[in-house]
Amino acid sequence: MTLWDKGAAVPKDIMEYTVGKDHELDLALVPFDCDASIAHAKMLSKIGVLTGKEAAELTAAFRSIKELHAAGNFSIAPQDEDCHTAIEKQLTEKLGDTGKKIHTGRSRNDQVAVALRLFMKDRLQQMKKSITQFQEILGKSIATFGGIMFPGYTHAQKAMPAPVSMWLGSFKDSMEDNKRFIDGVLKIIDQNPLGSGAGFGIPVFNLDKELTTKALGFAKVQENPLYVQLARGKFESIVMSALSAIAFDLNKLASDIILFSMQEFGYVKLPGEICTGSSIMPQKKNPDVLEILRGSYHVIVGNEMKIKGIMGNLMSGYSRDLQLTKGPLMESCKILLSSLQMATSVIGGMEIDEERCAAAMTPELYATEEAYKLVKEGMPFRDAYAEIGKKYG
Amino acid sequence: MTLWDKGAAVPKDIMEYTVGKDHELDLALVPFDCDASIAHAKMLSKIGVLTGKEAAELTAAFRSIKELHAAGNFSIAPQDEDCHTAIEKQLTEKLGDTGKKIHTGRSRNDQVAVALRLFMKDRLQQMKKSITQFQEILGKSIATFGGIMFPGYTHAQKAMPAPVSMWLGSFKDSMEDNKRFIDGVLKIIDQNPLGSGAGFGIPVFNLDKELTTKALGFAKVQENPLYVQLARGKFESIVMSALSAIAFDLNKLASDIILFSMQEFGYVKLPGEICTGSSIMPQKKNPDVLEILRGSYHVIVGNEMKIKGIMGNLMSGYSRDLQLTKGPLMESCKILLSSLQMATSVIGGMEIDEERCAAAMTPELYATEEAYKLVKEGMPFRDAYAEIGKKYG
Amino acid sequence: MTLWDKGAAVPKDIMEYTVGKDHELDLALVPFDCDASIAHAKMLSKIGVLTGKEAAELTAAFRSIKELHAAGNFSIAPQDEDCHTAIEKQLTEKLGDTGKKIHTGRSRNDQVAVALRLFMKDRLQQMKKSITQFQEILGKSIATFGGIMFPGYTHAQKAMPAPVSMWLGSFKDSMEDNKRFIDGVLKIIDQNPLGSGAGFGIPVFNLDKELTTKALGFAKVQENPLYVQLARGKFESIVMSALSAIAFDLNKLASDIILFSMQEFGYVKLPGEICTGSSIMPQKKNPDVLEILRGSYHVIVGNEMKIKGIMGNLMSGYSRDLQLTKGPLMESCKILLSSLQMATSVIGGMEIDEERCAAAMTPELYATEEAYKLVKEGMPFRDAYAEIGKKYG
Amino acid sequence: MTLWDKGAAVPKDIMEYTVGKDHELDLALVPFDCDASIAHAKMLSKIGVLTGKEAAELTAAFRSIKELHAAGNFSIAPQDEDCHTAIEKQLTEKLGDTGKKIHTGRSRNDQVAVALRLFMKDRLQQMKKSITQFQEILGKSIATFGGIMFPGYTHAQKAMPAPVSMWLGSFKDSMEDNKRFIDGVLKIIDQNPLGSGAGFGIPVFNLDKELTTKALGFAKVQENPLYVQLARGKFESIVMSALSAIAFDLNKLASDIILFSMQEFGYVKLPGEICTGSSIMPQKKNPDVLEILRGSYHVIVGNEMKIKGIMGNLMSGYSRDLQLTKGPLMESCKILLSSLQMATSVIGGMEIDEERCAAAMTPELYATEEAYKLVKEGMPFRDAYAEIGKKYG
Repeated sequence: MTLWDKGAAVPKDIMEYTVGKDHELDLALVPFDCDASIAHAKMLSKIGVLTGKEAAELTAAFRSIKELHAAGNFSIAPQDEDCHTAIEKQLTEKLGDTGKKIHTGRSRNDQVAVALRLFMKDRLQQMKKSITQFQEILGKSIATFGGIMFPGYTHAQKAMPAPVSMWLGSFKDSMEDNKRFIDGVLKIIDQNPLGSGAGFGIPVFNLDKELTTKALGFAKVQENPLYVQLARGKFESIVMSALSAIAFDLNKLASDIILFSMQEFGYVKLPGEICTGSSIMPQKKNPDVLEILRGSYHVIVGNEMKIKGIMGNLMSGYSRDLQLTKGPLMESCKILLSSLQMATSVIGGMEIDEERCAAAMTPELYATEEAYKLVKEGMPFRDAYAEIGKKYG
Repeated sequence: MTLWDKGAAVPKDIMEYTVGKDHELDLALVPFDCDASIAHAKMLSKIGVLTGKEAAELTAAFRSIKELHAAGNFSIAPQDEDCHTAIEKQLTEKLGDTGKKIHTGRSRNDQVAVALRLFMKDRLQQMKKSITQFQEILGKSIATFGGIMFPGYTHAQKAMPAPVSMWLGSFKDSMEDNKRFIDGVLKIIDQNPLGSGAGFGIPVFNLDKELTTKALGFAKVQENPLYVQLARGKFESIVMSALSAIAFDLNKLASDIILFSMQEFGYVKLPGEICTGSSIMPQKKNPDVLEILRGSYHVIVGNEMKIKGIMGNLMSGYSRDLQLTKGPLMESCKILLSSLQMATSVIGGMEIDEERCAAAMTPELYATEEAYKLVKEGMPFRDAYAEIGKKYG
Repeated sequence: MTLWDKGAAVPKDIMEYTVGKDHELDLALVPFDCDASIAHAKMLSKIGVLTGKEAAELTAAFRSIKELHAAGNFSIAPQDEDCHTAIEKQLTEKLGDTGKKIHTGRSRNDQVAVALRLFMKDRLQQMKKSITQFQEILGKSIATFGGIMFPGYTHAQKAMPAPVSMWLGSFKDSMEDNKRFIDGVLKIIDQNPLGSGAGFGIPVFNLDKELTTKALGFAKVQENPLYVQLARGKFESIVMSALSAIAFDLNKLASDIILFSMQEFGYVKLPGEICTGSSIMPQKKNPDVLEILRGSYHVIVGNEMKIKGIMGNLMSGYSRDLQLTKGPLMESCKILLSSLQMATSVIGGMEIDEERCAAAMTPELYATEEAYKLVKEGMPFRDAYAEIGKKYG
Repeated sequence: MTLWDKGAAVPKDIMEYTVGKDHELDLALVPFDCDASIAHAKMLSKIGVLTGKEAAELTAAFRSIKELHAAGNFSIAPQDEDCHTAIEKQLTEKLGDTGKKIHTGRSRNDQVAVALRLFMKDRLQQMKKSITQFQEILGKSIATFGGIMFPGYTHAQKAMPAPVSMWLGSFKDSMEDNKRFIDGVLKIIDQNPLGSGAGFGIPVFNLDKELTTKALGFAKVQENPLYVQLARGKFESIVMSALSAIAFDLNKLASDIILFSMQEFGYVKLPGEICTGSSIMPQKKNPDVLEILRGSYHVIVGNEMKIKGIMGNLMSGYSRDLQLTKGPLMESCKILLSSLQMATSVIGGMEIDEERCAAAMTPELYATEEAYKLVKEGMPFRDAYAEIGKKYG
């Protein structure tokens, strides 16, 4: 059964092809779809489409679906296409005509839009929390190891001395700006799309969009229904730009730690439990978790590209292509949240080897300082540079 | 249990993070891993590492795993990481010490490399077959509708008359070149990586690479073990370039049909069973399958980018990041194969509306022909162009 | 001559390869580099590295370079590598030892970072202004044509009636959010990197970063020098995410107008002067400007990917690879600013054909409204949907 | 003047926006456009559109334009849009009516298609030659340093011993396959598009496509004119997939050398003349050329994405968007050819430090060998692995 069933059967292979992974992906949307439906029922009741009793029955039914879902007991059959159909089906079975009425004044596009909006807000908030935890562990590591000096590199060549606090602190600062970026993104997407129908509004009925906006905790109504459709894909891609910015920091941190824990450096010691072995080489302790962390950046960037590619060169109004943006978005949220957790674990277990760091502090790292001392004594910088340059030539 | 177990437990979250979806993805690799193991056992027996009896026992065991898999009765537990571990585990349980011996003279990198290589060859061969079927249905459609004239467009403006045979034929020809592209890709990847160990060859034992090459049907040995590692990611990305080229043709075909079946054109009539409806608009018949077909191009291109991003800026020798190329490759193969099937169904059911096409043949489509007739009578082309241009100004 | 000349000549081909297009690109950075140098001189004077007289001479020299540049009379020779070298060279020729002193307490990395930061801030501000102009012209067009009804589409099929004001208004609203996005980006990048040296701070001298921050109009100091390096590429990619979001809206607008001005629709009439012709078809009037507008989205997205790819998998601290992010960023800014201008011109000249729109308002567009009327009379929505669905089956 | 001039002036800003960088880019196409025109004239003469005398005059004129161009004396004014217009303009000025006649039986789309096809063939042939030179220098380096043993790495951890010949040989082998890839690509694109007109063939005249095919050295005629248009963008993207595969090898080689020439490794010694310095740190010798080499991979991949993005979701027949694929293609060809040259220079000057390599051969590199020796003595591999694993635990 589908929400648009007209009697003619769609062949199974076509159904499977168009539905894709939606029935799996949509599991994550169930609570958000229920919340939106509860708000919609409340509103329909206020404008007289539902009686108070019907709204109460519907609300109770949605709450019990949410509970089922929270307990891991809600599933979506492939032939149900998506969570919206699966939920409405269960509703209609339970409440009969009342179940059918909940779809008054909204379309599935509406439902997808509002559920995804709530999902994105939720995940971005979770990320902010995870970032704060990550910053705390960075802070602890800086408190313990921050004073140790080790070589700073440019062009992968020893450049100047740097304290560990500068290295770890750069990620801490960047994560602070990542939270600012998330806030900026939230400011844009925090709009209630409910009431946009299929992209051209809801005729006949006078929906109270302010009511659902308040009930769902949105900052404001997204008034223009066609803007709701324009935002499909676009808001996802804006969210993805925050994700890829965060993932980039983790990519660089992972790149650094992989390098600094090579035998040739030894600045960093990784706890045994985060290393894995080789099937052929008995001696190996591999930083797999950091390699997956590093590679995850590119997975997220690739997902961002998918979304940006899918949504290009299309006319206004919904096209089914946009459904394909759901997977990359959801996968990326999951990867980023677990990546933040992994990075937190790694920093929590990582130690700095003070001896190896000290041994690496070779004289050429102080060349700039030497030149600057000459400058302080009155030599123009370019001359001091030439003077010291000869020494290390 | 893992193939590199040393007693220290890797925390569950780290294990899950590094394993990712491998335990699901690897199901598709089981038959290829078994085939490679059978060849490896044969070779080990020949060079005296296994007795003939041991090799026979191992071969029988691998065959029964293949049968289990073919019957849908083989699964990989998340804690087993991948198909290689799951298979070896089952083997060791069944055959004891003999099961342990199969890993002599190879590493998991070897196994992944050879299984993926066989997988890619298999899928590319399948694609060639699907393309041929698609070309046959295009041929049938051309035989039926090819003579109908309809407008050709440039810059989305009516340009010149075109027969339907030219339109559908362009895809048929392009698909022929796609098969050539696949052949070119096969010529590169058809190399046996077995014997490369972890990327630096197998010490102590003298493996007979020619034997496994012949047994597995590879064109030749990939001699340099480090080239095998260099090829990880690179061969995947070369395969992806063929997939995205094919997906592009389907993207354009879908774009055309979506446009030509709009009410404003009506050149194309889609069979009802491939259209889906709307949850709010009772009249809708939507070409969803074509929209997913169109969007799938971008999914494949995004996957290609993931692979090309993941493998960049890494040193020689295996890095775990490369594991992340498996998902995008496998997903893309699956999408492309089903997309070819869908395109075949669509063309099989699609009709050309001769009347709507005829009605669309407005006079300006013949302007070039008119100008050329003047040229034939002796007028220089630029003057004829100006003359006719005035008429349609 | 280079800023790091040590006497050994770098071969010409290597110099050309590493410099790339920098000597052309950097022309746009000259005024920003001069401004930063003036602020740096002021600061060096305050902390006693320069005398007041020296600072005044330097300031005057930088101002005259800015004037030369504004008049189109400043060029960068390929052998000078970049604007920083070209400017310092001119300075040293003019002021001798004083010219050499300006590089005290900063590195070229510093200069590139601060000049690019000022450049990005400037271009984002320009974009906000261009967006406002674009919104104004959208507003005017809505005032003139907004009341005209035409078909709204989903899945490229006629869906429901929509006023032109809804269509154009969706872009106007989205552009408002684009300005919010730019503000969010500005909030992140508005940090003064000056004083970070080569990424590990400036030894010996106590720079007054607050002074340069105030002088250059930055919101705050970017304290951690290694974060300045981490931000290289990252800030560029954050800026790019705003650009691609804006370019996406223009892509969709162009896609719509190209479609709606096809002979089969005729909803939109384009002024002759923005159309171009064909070299072979005398009748053609092609919407080339809209096609370039549409395609420019992908150019910008591709540039975003370049930057995101280049900066991945690199260790902390500057790597020359990052120089390659400059071109894609600058090209994208230029393209987006001219695209906004083009979109403004197109909307300014575009007319809506009321008759063609009216003729396109076929009955099925009102099916949802009909169903909703039945609902209002008491029929559950799913039943009304089925009832009306039969009518348009 | 344009080839489609109808009297109405296109505003300067719109002209500039649509022409973009074509007038610069097209300089590289001039010889190919001339060659194609000479072949076209020959054919027009054979089918009686031109007299023998006219064809001879035209041929002479095109040859002199080629000579002008070869001498660096041909330029394209921005208002001429592209090389085709600039060349025809010069022709018409010189030969009057005869000059006007050359455009009979072809469109600008034809000209762009054939010139780009010839350009791509030429550049791919050049790349094959550059690859062979690069392989030769790799061969020389292997002859000199190949026998030196140094550590092989997996997961960036010391894994097993490897000879330098294995390391450099992996690139040599991969380059051999790159030439195979190029051959596969050439096999696809080596088709003559001339005669396709604007994508729907040439009416009235019976062109002799075999003649131009033979004259231009194409392998065959690309018969279906709409396939010629379908191939626009697609062939470019297929070419790009070869370029990014080659650039990937150079990316990995550069990544290795940058790492191996770090002070911590010292396996590789770079000649002073390919290193550049720092503006602040007097001691620095930076491998800039290798960093640009590494980053260029991502530039090429980004260009590939531009092309694959631009051409998606478009209907059949030419759209101006496709013009934007020219820049990324041409830039990438230029970058790759110079990158191959740079890589050749680097390998030519690079030395392997035998002492540093020897010092790096620590005992754990032999763990696999030790385990295999136990296996050879009869111990099952998994047990030997556990035994040796304890030793290096």
